[in-house]
Amino acid sequence: MYHHVKELMYTVRVGTPDPRFGNMLLEQFGGANGELAAAMQYSIQGLNCDDPERKDMLMDIGTEELSHLEVVGTLARMHLKPLKSNRAAAHEDPLIAVAGGGGVALINSMGNAWTADYLKVTGELDVDLRSNIAAEARAKIVYERLIDFSEDPDTIDALQFLMTREITHMKAFTAALESLGKPAFSIGRIPPTPGLVDQYFNDSTGTGDRGESDARGPWNQGGDWEMVTAPAFEAFQSPKAGTREPSNGKETNGKQTNGKKDF
Amino acid sequence: MYHHVKELMYTVRVGTPDPRFGNMLLEQFGGANGELAAAMQYSIQGLNCDDPERKDMLMDIGTEELSHLEVVGTLARMHLKPLKSNRAAAHEDPLIAVAGGGGVALINSMGNAWTADYLKVTGELDVDLRSNIAAEARAKIVYERLIDFSEDPDTIDALQFLMTREITHMKAFTAALESLGKPAFSIGRIPPTPGLVDQYFNDSTGTGDRGESDARGPWNQGGDWEMVTAPAFEAFQSPKAGTREPSNGKETNGKQTNGKKDF
Amino acid sequence: MYHHVKELMYTVRVGTPDPRFGNMLLEQFGGANGELAAAMQYSIQGLNCDDPERKDMLMDIGTEELSHLEVVGTLARMHLKPLKSNRAAAHEDPLIAVAGGGGVALINSMGNAWTADYLKVTGELDVDLRSNIAAEARAKIVYERLIDFSEDPDTIDALQFLMTREITHMKAFTAALESLGKPAFSIGRIPPTPGLVDQYFNDSTGTGDRGESDARGPWNQGGDWEMVTAPAFEAFQSPKAGTREPSNGKETNGKQTNGKKDF
Amino acid sequence: MYHHVKELMYTVRVGTPDPRFGNMLLEQFGGANGELAAAMQYSIQGLNCDDPERKDMLMDIGTEELSHLEVVGTLARMHLKPLKSNRAAAHEDPLIAVAGGGGVALINSMGNAWTADYLKVTGELDVDLRSNIAAEARAKIVYERLIDFSEDPDTIDALQFLMTREITHMKAFTAALESLGKPAFSIGRIPPTPGLVDQYFNDSTGTGDRGESDARGPWNQGGDWEMVTAPAFEAFQSPKAGTREPSNGKETNGKQTNGKKDF
Amino acid sequence: MYHHVKELMYTVRVGTPDPRFGNMLLEQFGGANGELAAAMQYSIQGLNCDDPERKDMLMDIGTEELSHLEVVGTLARMHLKPLKSNRAAAHEDPLIAVAGGGGVALINSMGNAWTADYLKVTGELDVDLRSNIAAEARAKIVYERLIDFSEDPDTIDALQFLMTREITHMKAFTAALESLGKPAFSIGRIPPTPGLVDQYFNDSTGTGDRGESDARGPWNQGGDWEMVTAPAFEAFQSPKAGTREPSNGKETNGKQTNGKKDF
Amino acid sequence: MYHHVKELMYTVRVGTPDPRFGNMLLEQFGGANGELAAAMQYSIQGLNCDDPERKDMLMDIGTEELSHLEVVGTLARMHLKPLKSNRAAAHEDPLIAVAGGGGVALINSMGNAWTADYLKVTGELDVDLRSNIAAEARAKIVYERLIDFSEDPDTIDALQFLMTREITHMKAFTAALESLGKPAFSIGRIPPTPGLVDQYFNDSTGTGDRGESDARGPWNQGGDWEMVTAPAFEAFQSPKAGTREPSNGKETNGKQTNGKKDF
Repeated sequence: MYHHVKELMYTVRVGTPDPRFGNMLLEQFGGANGELAAAMQYSIQGLNCDDPERKDMLMDIGTEELSHLEVVGTLARMHLKPLKSNRAAAHEDPLIAVAGGGGVALINSMGNAWTADYLKVTGELDVDLRSNIAAEARAKIVYERLIDFSEDPDTIDALQFLMTREITHMKAFTAALESLGKPAFSIGRIPPTPGLVDQYFNDSTGTGDRGESDARGPWNQGGDWEMVTAPAFEAFQSPKAGTREPSNGKETNGKQTNGKKDF
Repeated sequence: MYHHVKELMYTVRVGTPDPRFGNMLLEQFGGANGELAAAMQYSIQGLNCDDPERKDMLMDIGTEELSHLEVVGTLARMHLKPLKSNRAAAHEDPLIAVAGGGGVALINSMGNAWTADYLKVTGELDVDLRSNIAAEARAKIVYERLIDFSEDPDTIDALQFLMTREITHMKAFTAALESLGKPAFSIGRIPPTPGLVDQYFNDSTGTGDRGESDARGPWNQGGDWEMVTAPAFEAFQSPKAGTREPSNGKETNGKQTNGKKDF
Repeated sequence: MYHHVKELMYTVRVGTPDPRFGNMLLEQFGGANGELAAAMQYSIQGLNCDDPERKDMLMDIGTEELSHLEVVGTLARMHLKPLKSNRAAAHEDPLIAVAGGGGVALINSMGNAWTADYLKVTGELDVDLRSNIAAEARAKIVYERLIDFSEDPDTIDALQFLMTREITHMKAFTAALESLGKPAFSIGRIPPTPGLVDQYFNDSTGTGDRGESDARGPWNQGGDWEMVTAPAFEAFQSPKAGTREPSNGKETNGKQTNGKKDF
Repeated sequence: MYHHVKELMYTVRVGTPDPRFGNMLLEQFGGANGELAAAMQYSIQGLNCDDPERKDMLMDIGTEELSHLEVVGTLARMHLKPLKSNRAAAHEDPLIAVAGGGGVALINSMGNAWTADYLKVTGELDVDLRSNIAAEARAKIVYERLIDFSEDPDTIDALQFLMTREITHMKAFTAALESLGKPAFSIGRIPPTPGLVDQYFNDSTGTGDRGESDARGPWNQGGDWEMVTAPAFEAFQSPKAGTREPSNGKETNGKQTNGKKDF
Repeated sequence: MYHHVKELMYTVRVGTPDPRFGNMLLEQFGGANGELAAAMQYSIQGLNCDDPERKDMLMDIGTEELSHLEVVGTLARMHLKPLKSNRAAAHEDPLIAVAGGGGVALINSMGNAWTADYLKVTGELDVDLRSNIAAEARAKIVYERLIDFSEDPDTIDALQFLMTREITHMKAFTAALESLGKPAFSIGRIPPTPGLVDQYFNDSTGTGDRGESDARGPWNQGGDWEMVTAPAFEAFQSPKAGTREPSNGKETNGKQTNGKKDF
Repeated sequence: MYHHVKELMYTVRVGTPDPRFGNMLLEQFGGANGELAAAMQYSIQGLNCDDPERKDMLMDIGTEELSHLEVVGTLARMHLKPLKSNRAAAHEDPLIAVAGGGGVALINSMGNAWTADYLKVTGELDVDLRSNIAAEARAKIVYERLIDFSEDPDTIDALQFLMTREITHMKAFTAALESLGKPAFSIGRIPPTPGLVDQYFNDSTGTGDRGESDARGPWNQGGDWEMVTAPAFEAFQSPKAGTREPSNGKETNGKQTNGKKDF
């Protein structure tokens, strides 16, 4: 159950409204990495969560994001209000001007309606937490860019508050993930096929027009990594050399032994 | 520049086609966490990437996902082919049956057209790598569920191959992120506001209908965490107690000192 | 600023989970007339509203709808949980089963992601209130249909609660609209063109295959109504007879006299 | 069956084409409250309608909106034609310029493709009429804003015509709704729960940053209204105090007695 | 200007309503190749068309498609009506049942809302005619599949009528295209680069898992065709061998000489 | 199976980056007629294709379009890069600037996310080839317009290359269609109803505001054409005169005789 108090979580002030910037701000109101996306992603993950402790965390942060939605919406509203009556400003975002009368809407900076396609909710707690860590990183960098594009100190103050909270949430989600104590790269119950899991396929080769080369790094050498030369190129030269064949059950070792659930 | 060889990266076989399962498989063909989403996310990140070494990795893996798209599409095609001529099967996915003539389409298991809204591409390398780690975790769990729902050993073989490769990619992206050597929770250039960044807002309280309680854990206690009691509740009881005030520049310390770029 | 308490606004219980019905219930979770649509429509209208009294009402009801979203989501979750592990149930909603692990998502009963295109927000208070009255009427009839399709008394109890609240809101929005004291059919500032506004164009004529006829009623006769015979048919028979001509400014009487704002 | 005559319903003229304004005009061509939305909403309601008299009205008005679509499209076309060959103009709407060759498309002012998600069609006649009344109010205010943003008297003439017709339709839909003779707030067959239906939940409280207060008005006091203090706040202070409990069937009084249909 | 007469263009009858088939029929009502798509594509091309003769044809056929939309919608309505009150039938299309009360909606067979993204309108007459020829071919094959899936002779009668008309339109669009007298493969004003235009790039090679081979045919041999071996493979083996280099202006011969318009 | 080499298929150079033009270029990257649409349409048709020879052609061209996607994306990236750090440029495409950090995304020139709704894939080979011929014609004209709007010779060089290849593909698809040897206007197996198929319905009549008249041409006169006067108008004047009646099976001659498949 929700309650709303009229005080904003962060008091916003705007010196001179800047409609162009207000339009940009909509990214964090109704955009892909914005506050509604965050609020909905965490709250719905929370609703589905069977782990009562981390469910509480998901609801804590999901609810805070609703308060952020209100803060960023209020800020955008202040910057966009001139669109209702100023012809030049109206052209910055005709959808807000003509259809919305200068009020904010759940759209991004290019007028696209918010969609739940932005959300990542799998119902697998550790997977959802990884999606959330990434989501917070994205939201942080978008706020940073908005700060870079703003010239109004009051606006920057509010964005700094909101940006900071993304790092807070990133830390909380990371701690929650680590507290689950899962081994690295262990997702779900079915283990990957040994051997195959350590093969790095070199599917992009050659030298680019600006000298980009075929690189080596800890993501394809050292440790357990086995470098596999361009499988398609192998197949090109020697048909069937590059394709993987089912191994008569050896790879999966049958349903029971690979961790697959019985129904 | 791309080249295609006709051999599949993994040879697929299907015993008895199962149209219902074929419909489910479309999740990994044209769905939110599927192979086209993976191929496009990494390839476009790669196209934008200014770090030549990790750009190569993004192109390697993005290209491999195109080969996976072909594998999973071929597998789905085998399961869905009966829809063209079998009335009962056609009802499992009328869009495939009537509009597609039993062929696969870039849709998910509920017939939604694939959309680039599924992608997470920010142009900030470490952020993109985090999005990719989460994307691989999601793809892995979806393949695991498909294995759980499949009864055909040949189909399971192919899914086990594809599922394994997601873990391979998760390892590669993690290694690439770590090799950047960025401090934990450091995203972009502008640091979060000290103090505020360590406050955990307890925005969801009380006891749920099934006994869910207000929990503590490493995500809100220990280390630098400062627990803040429900800000809205504070405001409810004592107006203005819960709201954050701009701190006259103290929080942001001015534009120059907080890492903000000069234009 | 928002706060969440873990108690649901209405305690939900489910006897035997019914995945097919759970799928239907998603209409009121992530569907066009569902609780998220209501919550967002009213809350964003409230954020934009310059009338402090009705702004409070919009926030009251918008917040209540968030609590309803949680109630209907929890109910749907109970009905859909079997999809995670039951192969037959999974086919009722493969998107929930395979991508969501049996958890709810912001989709409707056919798997379409929620979109802000469902919302009607114009920033003109009386217009928004009319949109809200209509929205509550739609939500009421959808809950009634869900009650009709449900066989579980506990589920019906919860739906009856939610359905009742829609009528409550419909009454409140109607009272708020009436309290504005606007004359009937007065929208905005620019008056419609006299005469023309009372002409009813009979654009659909003849008798239908089932005897449907060209009807008269209080919507085209009596009062000020002037019946105009099929304008296109007039034009068909006598070119230019059906078309309306600009009246050399007489219709609009210039910008100043028709209520048009000066910039 | 439809017939088209080449005369426009309203002759349009344009002095100097204004590409920026043409772009704005697309709101009423392919936008959420535009003429295609109106034409489709009423015509499809009409197709589904079992009341032959009001079905005729829905088809009359639905068909008129098709004629309006043609008028507003022709007007927009005149304003947008320079986009094909004028580089500066092309940037006002690159989608029209590059993909459309300066011709109109079923998009809104921000380039979003028209979608049937804009429509409200429930198959419950009185509910649909309420949706239509609200739709006409929205269309009226959008035309008014376009008039405000236009400087071309000929364009304003045409918009005044179109705007006037929205009020005509609003009157017709209102008369049709009233002629159904339904009691106020009676939607469908199942009555709301007595008592509960009169409770107003005060879910947004406190004082806003600009002094917005917790308001009373005819929407929550007087008549049958019972004011209920913030349910979530009650629950916060005294668990379970704010939650609603199923009343052991008392609220719904069983399926037969609450008006629920038998199948 | 449009007029509607209540007689359908083709009288529809239905023996036993078949909800599953009704759901399939929605493909031609609100689907990608359906009647609304056809009506809108041709009518909007017509609105934009500067060739008065072919503009008339576009309006003729666009208007006929509106009449088809009404026919197929009426037919689908008859098959879907049971969804309102029959629980089993309702599960065939819960969106129609719960949100639409058994009435048709502008959705396809999987519940996706119709979108103008389905349309192909470029404002270049010969190009638009080619898009229309292809659109009619698609609509024809979809009607054929619906006939294949139907068991009701009356329904098949109506579908045969509609299917026949698609061929009629295909013939008309083809005649209109030919009457323009444009040389084959001449699109727009700027000629393709000689030589390059005749090179066929063999970008897919090898032998497929089912024996598919690298084929030759009139699309890559004979006439002016020059076969180019896999450019990427050339580059793979000998860097830069496969890439095309700008030819110092020779390919384009400057702006004036290649047919490019002057602004 | 795919392989990627780092050399572009066409080397791109840019003199002075032009963010406005870069935004326009996105039409061919993530737009409706762009390279991803082409790559996906042909590759998925190829995946579904049972004709091994033309399947090879579909894969050849589908793969080439992936290389084009990379070329046009690299070119757009060069023009859009300034958006990351230049405030004025950022306003040209705030989605690219704020969410994408100046990198390209799978969006069109108005910021709409790429959607598979753009694709035309029916699984009927000759129909798909017609869709492809039309798609290439559209892509050609869009490249021509981009050339018209560009002022940078290097950019024009690359666009000329890409534009030329569209004609190459149009020729190949046309040759492949002709090589199937199907009679003109023969789609699928069920023949259209004789007589009816040659009737041209004159559904748009009269004279337009600019003198557009009711035209005759090879699309409605000569050959087998029979001109039918406005059916709806006939019905308007003489009910039932314009409607088509089922002909007691004569039109379809039963299921077996009309070419309908047996299941």
